[in-house]
Amino acid sequence: MSIGFEIITRDGAARAGRLATAHGTIATPCFMPIGTAGTVKAMTPDGVAASGARLILGNTYHLMLRPGAERVAALGGLHKFMNWPHAVLTDSGGFQVMSLAALRTISEDGVAFRSHIDGSRHVLTPERSIEIQRLLGSDITMSFDECTPFPAERSAVEASMELSMRWAERSRRTFIERDGHGIFGIVQGGAHADLRERSARRLVKIGFDGYAIGGLAIGEGQATTFAMTEATVPFLPADRPRYLMGVGKPGDLVGGVKRGVDMFDCVLPTRSGRTAQAFTRDGTLNLRNARHADDPAPLDPECRCPACTGFSRAYLHHLVKAGEILAAMLLTAHNLTYYADLMAAMREAIMAGRLAEFETPQ
Amino acid sequence: MSIGFEIITRDGAARAGRLATAHGTIATPCFMPIGTAGTVKAMTPDGVAASGARLILGNTYHLMLRPGAERVAALGGLHKFMNWPHAVLTDSGGFQVMSLAALRTISEDGVAFRSHIDGSRHVLTPERSIEIQRLLGSDITMSFDECTPFPAERSAVEASMELSMRWAERSRRTFIERDGHGIFGIVQGGAHADLRERSARRLVKIGFDGYAIGGLAIGEGQATTFAMTEATVPFLPADRPRYLMGVGKPGDLVGGVKRGVDMFDCVLPTRSGRTAQAFTRDGTLNLRNARHADDPAPLDPECRCPACTGFSRAYLHHLVKAGEILAAMLLTAHNLTYYADLMAAMREAIMAGRLAEFETPQ
Repeated sequence: MSIGFEIITRDGAARAGRLATAHGTIATPCFMPIGTAGTVKAMTPDGVAASGARLILGNTYHLMLRPGAERVAALGGLHKFMNWPHAVLTDSGGFQVMSLAALRTISEDGVAFRSHIDGSRHVLTPERSIEIQRLLGSDITMSFDECTPFPAERSAVEASMELSMRWAERSRRTFIERDGHGIFGIVQGGAHADLRERSARRLVKIGFDGYAIGGLAIGEGQATTFAMTEATVPFLPADRPRYLMGVGKPGDLVGGVKRGVDMFDCVLPTRSGRTAQAFTRDGTLNLRNARHADDPAPLDPECRCPACTGFSRAYLHHLVKAGEILAAMLLTAHNLTYYADLMAAMREAIMAGRLAEFETPQ
Repeated sequence: MSIGFEIITRDGAARAGRLATAHGTIATPCFMPIGTAGTVKAMTPDGVAASGARLILGNTYHLMLRPGAERVAALGGLHKFMNWPHAVLTDSGGFQVMSLAALRTISEDGVAFRSHIDGSRHVLTPERSIEIQRLLGSDITMSFDECTPFPAERSAVEASMELSMRWAERSRRTFIERDGHGIFGIVQGGAHADLRERSARRLVKIGFDGYAIGGLAIGEGQATTFAMTEATVPFLPADRPRYLMGVGKPGDLVGGVKRGVDMFDCVLPTRSGRTAQAFTRDGTLNLRNARHADDPAPLDPECRCPACTGFSRAYLHHLVKAGEILAAMLLTAHNLTYYADLMAAMREAIMAGRLAEFETPQ
């Protein structure tokens, strides 16, 4: 069978479950750290696992350009290449390619674009995207889709969604079934509930191992993200995993879980770790701020991460001011731990039937 | 007593020993990684210890400017601040201050200079340097000295050395004896054997816990470094540790140990780790080189470091090309392990009476 998904408990719309892949079982709801170029930035794989993550996201666009999918395959696949024994989900490349703007041309066949690295020409089609993800050895493959820009006219959103649905069908057809590996479809439709419904129904008809809600968290605001999640979830199979792409801030994750989402990814914890931002129970701290210079307290006295168990805010402030790599290493480790522990706490709340009382982080 | 030093075995001029400090005992000969600004760049303290190092070097100049010696003291000292439970040697600030060139003025009293960070005015005297090192909580304090530029006229070298000797006396007088803490004098004298002898004799007369050979590895070449080491060692007490400052390449370390040196420091393994250079038994590798792109082999199949046990040359090459922080993290860990293991291998060779046969690395 492809990937397994078992729902252990429900609490309102929320679910606590287990996602079984060829590279281990992941407790859901879960957050996936981003491993753009075959590394979660500023982290060793051991450090990522220590944070609690068991499923990371790899970027097809970045990896196809450098080091190249065929090269990664020849070296034994992405897991071996980056020494990550746990599960990997790869995006389809669609989102990154769309963001190239002037550098790409979309047709029914796919997207022709120029590399941001060296200007070389490339083409991504549904068939090639799925092939690349297979070469990388991804546990969870994402359908190739067009991420509709926001804002856009309804007619453009509709046409884009319809194109993505045709690409989803080609993606599904190209995907080769393997034990412990699966493919997700991606719901599009912008901020239009009826288009979201139509998209979801189309994908369910094609049939996927899981369903993602895409094209959100790109500037439309949390209220719209939540509204579109609510407009989509009822049309997705209850027994399959749901993934809200590119989300988000701690409060977004709580809102997503409460609306029945099982999986999330976002650059926020890792990118913030490289720009002196730390997530804590009491809100976000900017370690560049001079008020931390003499503070002997850790970021969070109850946090189990290497930054909190070994170092003071004063030291982290010093590292940030001095431009030291260790600042990025420690703050990224902290943020990933914060995210993993937030997901684990939500899971516990679901198991206890108390998610409604779960406090939304600042 | 101050710091302990016990020589276990001699092999020719070389010695295998044990250096006992308030923060642990260090097997000698040893190499000290550089922890410039309260961190060994791109490494966690755990990672530094895992490489084998038990004594690191902190920079008085950098730490006095940022975060400030009084601040570090208020936060519990450098060990606690940076979460390094093992031993710390601090330099005196002399070397860095001299390299500021246009920004400093030397007088009998000391050196007035402007910070490279914000242009603020500071003064370093022997008394202030020793006080700063005490505030930092250094296990091994270095005398404040003038690092004589190279090349220089003999008269200038002589005057500079004499000034350093007067500063050494003031440094010694300022140093407050504490259990497990010691102060080293620094021999100067440029490339003049007779000045080196005179400097060594002066320092021995003052009496220090250990003796450093300074003002070398600044462009004079390995032959001169070795010649000046040979010109100095006979005038240093046989029962006290000897430290060749700022040295060096693997071959320099072997040459130094063979000439009776017990301690070394250099930015080479850490800086190289951030510029894609890896030290191996077979010479230095540049991981930026395209020939590594498809190589599934580790840097060194016999190395125990995290880079070699987890990753291929192809992956390290990819990280370097992609500008990933993990490249610096892994290559620094590798280089520090290489240096620690080189020192350990020399120590074993000394214990076995076979150092003469020890192969000088490329």
